[in-house]
Amino acid sequence: MRASVLRDGRMVYRDDVPEPVPGPGQVLVGVRACGICGSDLHFAAHGAEVVALSNELAQGGGMDLDLNRDVFMGHEFSAEVLEAGPDTETHPPGTLVTSIPVVLSAKGVEPIVFSNTTLGGYAERMLLSAPLLLAVPNGLDPKHAALAEPMAVGLHAVNKSGIDSGEAALVIGCGPIGIAIIAALRVRGVETIVASDFSTKRRELARQMGAHQTLDPAQGSPFDSVRPAVVFEAVGVPGIINDVMRRARRGSRLVVAGVCMQADTVHPFFAIAKEITVQFSNAYTPEEFGESLHALAEGHIDVAPMITGEVGLDGVGAAFDDLADPERHCKILVTP
Amino acid sequence: MRASVLRDGRMVYRDDVPEPVPGPGQVLVGVRACGICGSDLHFAAHGAEVVALSNELAQGGGMDLDLNRDVFMGHEFSAEVLEAGPDTETHPPGTLVTSIPVVLSAKGVEPIVFSNTTLGGYAERMLLSAPLLLAVPNGLDPKHAALAEPMAVGLHAVNKSGIDSGEAALVIGCGPIGIAIIAALRVRGVETIVASDFSTKRRELARQMGAHQTLDPAQGSPFDSVRPAVVFEAVGVPGIINDVMRRARRGSRLVVAGVCMQADTVHPFFAIAKEITVQFSNAYTPEEFGESLHALAEGHIDVAPMITGEVGLDGVGAAFDDLADPERHCKILVTP
Repeated sequence: MRASVLRDGRMVYRDDVPEPVPGPGQVLVGVRACGICGSDLHFAAHGAEVVALSNELAQGGGMDLDLNRDVFMGHEFSAEVLEAGPDTETHPPGTLVTSIPVVLSAKGVEPIVFSNTTLGGYAERMLLSAPLLLAVPNGLDPKHAALAEPMAVGLHAVNKSGIDSGEAALVIGCGPIGIAIIAALRVRGVETIVASDFSTKRRELARQMGAHQTLDPAQGSPFDSVRPAVVFEAVGVPGIINDVMRRARRGSRLVVAGVCMQADTVHPFFAIAKEITVQFSNAYTPEEFGESLHALAEGHIDVAPMITGEVGLDGVGAAFDDLADPERHCKILVTP
Repeated sequence: MRASVLRDGRMVYRDDVPEPVPGPGQVLVGVRACGICGSDLHFAAHGAEVVALSNELAQGGGMDLDLNRDVFMGHEFSAEVLEAGPDTETHPPGTLVTSIPVVLSAKGVEPIVFSNTTLGGYAERMLLSAPLLLAVPNGLDPKHAALAEPMAVGLHAVNKSGIDSGEAALVIGCGPIGIAIIAALRVRGVETIVASDFSTKRRELARQMGAHQTLDPAQGSPFDSVRPAVVFEAVGVPGIINDVMRRARRGSRLVVAGVCMQADTVHPFFAIAKEITVQFSNAYTPEEFGESLHALAEGHIDVAPMITGEVGLDGVGAAFDDLADPERHCKILVTP
């Protein structure tokens, strides 16, 4: 079977991956589309660091992963049902489905994210769990359905913020997470959505996806122009949290959705004096994933403008490189 | 008039401070007791840094303070009404009162905290504002009434946390702020209050003030023994926020009540992976101040065990030095 795997920090095309065999409760599916996520790019470049941090976090257990072996990735996928495992009821073959990226097996709950053994969406076929499958409704394009996952990340961050429609939101960073946040804010009816990004293309995309106003931080701090009640950090590099603490207004809520893997320096004094709340946000609930899929299927969110490229399994390596340029790309889909 | 003032980083006794004269809306009061706060100690040692940070925070305006001139301090006070200003109605002379530490004047709202001109509680007499005065009820000891202020800081932090009585709380640091948090948690009916401090004396005090369990962090991380839903940081030194992020359980709420004036390093990854909320807490509302006074007056909180010393105005300098030793002191009162 064909797949693209991470080997020595590069995505490598293989045509000799063993065919997966569904166990009880599992379903063999044919991948229709899989989005390339920034966390995959980060893992490709800094895998050892991610594994070390994850293991430190787990304090025993942790990530069972050998970076000297091929790593399967791809967690933003839509797929077609091919064959159910033994004693497993599921949708009929040919049904377009998606799922939160975990698979249940005899070993327990396995995340579909970075694994030496569990296939992800950068492959011709993979295994999913029958009880977790969601049929893609309304004839939604499988390329769009694949993006239910990143859009759910944005929805979750917005839900965590508890923002009211009358409160102004500032979204710092208009990569895929920032864009997903903007879309979710728009669906929630937030009346003032301001988006900030250095890239002209990304600011344009932010407007298309729902921002009412965009700002170029090269022209001055966004806080010189707006006084948001809620700030979404969707960049994930050191320094931003502190800058928000320093510039945001009293009582601001900061939702950190950007995943900063490095150490960061903050001056708590500013946050204390202004009683800022910092809510760190990660992933989503299964309910939010389903809600996100329906927002796409019902046309509340149109992800078409986000999709800036499409490659086959043999093009994943080049796509990883291309995604470094924010003027060219937001989301590249792998269509096996 | 007698007072103790900050001069060149030391508290100095003076007997030549000009007598304050109440303006309209103001009341001349005789200070009965004033608690020495950790923020006063910090200001005495690092005043220039505090002024610089406050001015940076204010971005224009800020703290109008000259460290080359004497600085008046003392914001945890009780006092006796002496004389009302012109056209000012207030309590009869002799009434024991307290107030949030601000005074209204022709210049606007002036904080009673660090000032070259506005007297604080380390003085024989000071000015307060008639509309802000709270009569001390139930014959509460003026020494105890002075501590309504620091106890309100604890109440505010607990209110900010939104803790339920069934949720376990860990209080890191049992100085006056930690103790005030413990007392407020107990009043709220929280059933599991765990307190952590290196000092044996402070752990004893924590138990007296309401902690169900105390831990010595020299014997191992508190998180090895307890899995709190809410963590209160009441130390205010670099490193603690990150340690909580690293060790706390998923979904923890961290309330930062300790005032760390230095830069601090955190690893956002841990907080993101566990979706931790960090609520920075500062001061209190006027309502919380009043509620705190009533909790003392009605006997819900007994602050007697916190009061470990009492000095006159000529003893403030030595008291500042003594407070460095957590085995000897929690709160020293100045009784002019």
